[in-house]
Amino acid sequence: MKKEELLELARLLRYYSLTSTTEAGSGHPTTCLSAADLMAVFMGKYYHYDFKKPDKNSNDRLIFSKGHAAPLLYAMYTAAGAIDEKELMTLRKHESRLAGHPVPDLLPWVDVATGSLGQGLSVGVGMALAGKYLDEEQHRVFVLMGDSEVAEGSVWEAAASAAHYKLDNMVGILDVNRLGQSQETMYGHDVKVYEKRFKAFGWQTVVIDGHNLEEIDAVFEAAMQNTGKPFVIIAKTLKGKGVSSVENLDNKHGKPLSKDELKEALAELGEVDKKIKVDTKHTIDRAKITHDRKLPKAVEGEKKEYPVGETFATRAVYGPTLARLGHKDKDIVAIDGETKNSTYAEKFMLEHPDRFFEMYIAEQNMLGVALGLSKRGKTVFASSFAAFLTRGYDQIRMAAASSGNFSIVGSHAGVSIGEDGASQMGLEDLAMMRAVHGSAVVYPSDAISTDKLIPEMIHYDGLAYMRTSRPATEVLYDDGEKFPLGGSKVLRKSNEDQVCIMACGVTLHEALKAYEALSKQGILVRVVDVYSIKPIDINGLHAAVRASQNKVVTVEDHWWDGGLGDAVLNVFAGDATVTVEKMAVVNLPTVGTGAEMMREAEIDAEAIVQRIQEIVSH
Amino acid sequence: MKKEELLELARLLRYYSLTSTTEAGSGHPTTCLSAADLMAVFMGKYYHYDFKKPDKNSNDRLIFSKGHAAPLLYAMYTAAGAIDEKELMTLRKHESRLAGHPVPDLLPWVDVATGSLGQGLSVGVGMALAGKYLDEEQHRVFVLMGDSEVAEGSVWEAAASAAHYKLDNMVGILDVNRLGQSQETMYGHDVKVYEKRFKAFGWQTVVIDGHNLEEIDAVFEAAMQNTGKPFVIIAKTLKGKGVSSVENLDNKHGKPLSKDELKEALAELGEVDKKIKVDTKHTIDRAKITHDRKLPKAVEGEKKEYPVGETFATRAVYGPTLARLGHKDKDIVAIDGETKNSTYAEKFMLEHPDRFFEMYIAEQNMLGVALGLSKRGKTVFASSFAAFLTRGYDQIRMAAASSGNFSIVGSHAGVSIGEDGASQMGLEDLAMMRAVHGSAVVYPSDAISTDKLIPEMIHYDGLAYMRTSRPATEVLYDDGEKFPLGGSKVLRKSNEDQVCIMACGVTLHEALKAYEALSKQGILVRVVDVYSIKPIDINGLHAAVRASQNKVVTVEDHWWDGGLGDAVLNVFAGDATVTVEKMAVVNLPTVGTGAEMMREAEIDAEAIVQRIQEIVSH
Repeated sequence: MKKEELLELARLLRYYSLTSTTEAGSGHPTTCLSAADLMAVFMGKYYHYDFKKPDKNSNDRLIFSKGHAAPLLYAMYTAAGAIDEKELMTLRKHESRLAGHPVPDLLPWVDVATGSLGQGLSVGVGMALAGKYLDEEQHRVFVLMGDSEVAEGSVWEAAASAAHYKLDNMVGILDVNRLGQSQETMYGHDVKVYEKRFKAFGWQTVVIDGHNLEEIDAVFEAAMQNTGKPFVIIAKTLKGKGVSSVENLDNKHGKPLSKDELKEALAELGEVDKKIKVDTKHTIDRAKITHDRKLPKAVEGEKKEYPVGETFATRAVYGPTLARLGHKDKDIVAIDGETKNSTYAEKFMLEHPDRFFEMYIAEQNMLGVALGLSKRGKTVFASSFAAFLTRGYDQIRMAAASSGNFSIVGSHAGVSIGEDGASQMGLEDLAMMRAVHGSAVVYPSDAISTDKLIPEMIHYDGLAYMRTSRPATEVLYDDGEKFPLGGSKVLRKSNEDQVCIMACGVTLHEALKAYEALSKQGILVRVVDVYSIKPIDINGLHAAVRASQNKVVTVEDHWWDGGLGDAVLNVFAGDATVTVEKMAVVNLPTVGTGAEMMREAEIDAEAIVQRIQEIVSH
Repeated sequence: MKKEELLELARLLRYYSLTSTTEAGSGHPTTCLSAADLMAVFMGKYYHYDFKKPDKNSNDRLIFSKGHAAPLLYAMYTAAGAIDEKELMTLRKHESRLAGHPVPDLLPWVDVATGSLGQGLSVGVGMALAGKYLDEEQHRVFVLMGDSEVAEGSVWEAAASAAHYKLDNMVGILDVNRLGQSQETMYGHDVKVYEKRFKAFGWQTVVIDGHNLEEIDAVFEAAMQNTGKPFVIIAKTLKGKGVSSVENLDNKHGKPLSKDELKEALAELGEVDKKIKVDTKHTIDRAKITHDRKLPKAVEGEKKEYPVGETFATRAVYGPTLARLGHKDKDIVAIDGETKNSTYAEKFMLEHPDRFFEMYIAEQNMLGVALGLSKRGKTVFASSFAAFLTRGYDQIRMAAASSGNFSIVGSHAGVSIGEDGASQMGLEDLAMMRAVHGSAVVYPSDAISTDKLIPEMIHYDGLAYMRTSRPATEVLYDDGEKFPLGGSKVLRKSNEDQVCIMACGVTLHEALKAYEALSKQGILVRVVDVYSIKPIDINGLHAAVRASQNKVVTVEDHWWDGGLGDAVLNVFAGDATVTVEKMAVVNLPTVGTGAEMMREAEIDAEAIVQRIQEIVSH
C-alpha cells in the first residue's frame, strides 16, 4: 500500500473503533486511536496472514497484549474483509463474537485471550520459540503492548527470555500513549526509559513517532531483518489521537464517545472509504529466520521399570516417562523454571535437548510460553515446584480463558517435603488448579500411576495439572493397570468396612499403613486412591462409600480448603446419608523431616488410625 | 571493625554456615559462602540493629530474599550473640527455630518468610516507603538477592517502584555467584548485564568484587549516602567461595558437605575465633533520609449515607469508608494497582494523599509492598480487580507464611461485571483466598455490610480479603446492623421454609428476587446472606438449614470449585441429613451485560426459581 492508502486505512480503523464502541456504549476507543497508525502500516504493508486460513503455519501471529484495544483489532478484521461492518457493530453485545477483550473461543483469528495486561509478550515468546527452533515453516510474531502494562514484571521475564533465545522472529510494538487507566504512567512520554530498559534486556530498539506513517513504515521494514535479537518498536503516541475532544487527555480511558461526540469526531476525521479491503498476505522484505541453537548431544534413554514394592518418588518418574513418550511423539516440548533437577524435567532435556527450553526462575513467563507453544501445535509440559506455580496463577487463568491445552507438573507438594520448609511446600496447588476453568487435576501416589497418567494428560483437551511428591513411595500397581481421568482405585476392601478412607499421593500410603494397624484391631476400612481429583470418579466413590457404612475420611497433604476433601464433598453434596470427615493441613508447618511434618499436621498413619477409632467408637 | 576483624568475621560466618548444614544433612552452604564476605562487612561496620530490641523503629531491616542462604543469616545471629552455637546446630531439625528458609513465626529477627525467590525487594520497597515517607524514626532497608532470582519479573516491578518513589533508604545487594540450582544463570558472571538493567530501572549501581573486603567496605559507605535513588551493590562472587572442593563448581547447589568434606574444608578455612561478638549498632556515615514527596492538597471527605432501598456498588463504598476510617486511624495506608478509579481506592487517596501509594500495574509488587508496609506497623489495604490479584498469589501465600497482617480488596468479581468479559472477571478469587493459611474472606452484598466489614478486616489478625462487585445493588441493611467475621444474616424466613438459599454479593439479590417469585407460587424459602465465607457461621448455617427441611442451595458468581458452595459443604460435611445443591459458574462466559451473563451462567433469580421448583417437586 502507498502512503495515501495507508492514511485512508488508518482513518478507517479509527472510524470503526469509534463507531463500534459508541454503538456498544462501552469499551476503550482512545487506546485504539493511539495504535491505529501503527496497525494501519502493519496490516497495510507487512502483516503476512491469510484470514481464510487462520491455522496456516506460515501465518504471522499478532497478539494484542493490550487487549482492551480489541475494537481496533476488530476494525482490522473489518478492513481485511474477515467480518463485515454489521457484525462489527455487535461489539460487546450478547451473542456477538466480538467480546470486550479478544477471546479465541469466539473468533478464529484470535490465538489467545488477552485483557489481563503484560501477558502477551510471554505468549509471543512461546510462539516465536516454535517458529524459530521447532517448525519447518516459519512465521513472525508481533505483540502490541501498551505502556502501562510494561510495569508488569512478566513483560521483563518475557523480554529476558526472548533475548536469551535470540528470537529475531519476534517484534514488540510498544504504544507509549502516556496515559493509564486512572492517571499518567510512571514515565509519561519519556520514551527513552523504555528504550533503555529493552536495550538492557537485550533487544534491538527503535523509537519513533507512532503517528508518522513514514517512520512507522521504516521501522517495520527494519524489524523484518534478522539480527539475532528480538526487535521492539517504541512508538510515542497520543491516546485518542485524531479526536480533539479526547486526544491526550486524562480521564478518557475506557469511555466511548457519546453519539454527539461521535458525530463531531467523525466530522473531524473526515470521509472514510469503507471499500478498502486489505489483502494481508504480504511477503516483502522478510529475511529468512535461521535456526542457530547450539545443543548438546542427546543421551540415550534408559528403560525404566517400577516393580511393585520398590520405592520411587513420583517426581522422579515424570521426567523419564515424558522422555520415553517424546521418542514417539515429536510434538512434545518440555519447559521448566530452573528446577529441572528437582522436577526431573531434566530427563526429558537430556534425551530431547532440541525440544526442551529452560525458562529460568520466571514462572509467569514459563506459563505464558507454554500457552504460546501449545497454540503452535506443541504438546507442552511446564514444570516447577507446585508452590512456585502460584506465581503464574493469572497466566494459568488466562490460558484457560484462551482454551489453552497443555500440561503443568508441580513437584514438592505438601509438608512431606520436610526440611526446606513452608516456602517450598505446595499446599494450595490443588485448590488453585481445581478452580481453573476446564482443568483436570491428578495426583498420583506411585510410579506406575504417574507413568500412566502422563499420556492421559496429553490426551486431555484443556489444562491438565499433575501434582508430584518429593519423598519416594512404594509402587502399588502393576504395569498393566489403567488410570483413566475420572477414575479411582479401591486398594483395600472387605464386606465389613466401617469407613472409607479416600486419599491420594503421599497420604494414600499413610492410609494403607493405617489400614494395617486398624486391621490388627479388628477395624476394617476401605482404602480408595482418588488419583483423579478433577474430574472425580463420582460413581466409583459412591459405590465405595455405600460399602463402607456411608462414612468417608479424606486425608490430604494440602491446606484444609479447596483440595481433595472439598472435591469429595462435592461428590456427596446432594446425598443426605453420607458423612465426610476431612484431614488436611491446618497450621503453618514448623521445622523437621517430611515424616515429622506429616505427624505435626496430623495427616499420617497414626492420626488416621486415631480418627478412625474415634469414628467407629461413636 | 578493622579489616583483620572483618576477615575473621567472614571466616566465622563461613565456618557456621558449613558446620550447621553438614550437621543438618541438608541445606545450601555454597550460596552462603558466596555472600559471606558481603555480610561480614555489612554486619561488622554498617548494620544498625539492636538484636535485643528487634521491634525498635530505628533498626535497619535486612531481608534475605535469597532465603536458601538462611544458614548464613543464622551464622550472623550467632556472631551477634543472638543465638548460641548449640542452637545453630539445630538447623532444620524438628522443634528448632532455624528453618530451612527463614520464618518470622519462629525467630524475632526475621521480618518476613523468604524462600520463594524474587519477593524480598518488594517487601523492602514497602518497608522503605514507610521509612522514607511515613515514619518519624528512620531506618534503612537492605535486601540480599541472588542472581538467579532476578529473572523473576517481580524484582523489576519492585525496582521500578523503588526508583519511582526515590527510595534512597534502600540498598539492594546482588550476589552474582553465577550458578543457579540446575545450571548457570542466563548471564553467568556478566555483571554488566545486571548493572545495565538496574541503571535502566533508575537505580544507582556499583559493581564490585564481592570477596574484596575493601571494595565491599567502600561500596557500603557509598550506599549510605542519599542521592534520591535506591542503591544496588552488584557483587561478583563465587558460589562456595573458600572451599576448593565446591568453589565455583556446577552441581553443588543445595548440598551440604559430608563430614569428611567438612573436615577438609575447615582445614582450608583455618582457625576461627568463636569469641567474636559483633555489636551491630553502627551509626557511622548515615546521611539523613529526606522526605521529599510532592503531594496534592487533601480534599475533604463527604459524609456518605446508604439508605435502605437505594443502590450502590459495593466497590464504590470501599474507598469512602476507608477514607473515613483513615481520619481516625493514622496508620491506615492504601495502595492500588492502577485501578483506583474502579476499585474506588481513589477516594482514600484524595482525602489522604500522604498515605496512598500508587503501585501501577504490578500486582506482585503491590502485594509484597503491602507485606512490607504492614511489617512496619501500618494498617494496609491493597486493591485491584479480583481477577488480577491472581497475579500475586505467590506473594499472598508467602505473606501468610510471614504471619502477614493486611487487607486485600478485589473488585469486579464475577460474570456480573458484564461486557468487559472473562479476562476481567474474578472467578477464582474465593477459591484462591480460602486456600490461604489463616485468611478471612468476606463478600458483602450491599453498602452497609461493606462499610461495616472494613473495620472487621482491620481488626482481623491475618490476611483479610474482601470481594466487591461492579454493579450497584440495593441497600439491605440498616446502618445499625453489625457484621462480625464468622457471622451470617437470615433475610427471609418463615415457619414453612422448604429450602434454604445461601448466597452473598450479587447473587444474594437474585435469591431475594427468587424468594418473591417463589412466594407467589406458595413456595417458601429461607434466604441467608453468607457474607463471611471464611470463617463461616457454622452455628448460624446449621440453624438455618434445620428450619428449612435440611435442604440448601448455594448460589455464587464464581467458578464451581472452591467458592461459597465448597465453604458451605464443609459446614455440613459431617451431617448426614443435609443436602447441598450448588449453583455456580461452569462455562466460560461469552459476551453481554452483567444480567445477560448471570442468565447465561444460570445464577440469576430465574435459574434459582427453577432449581428450587425442581427440588420441592421431588
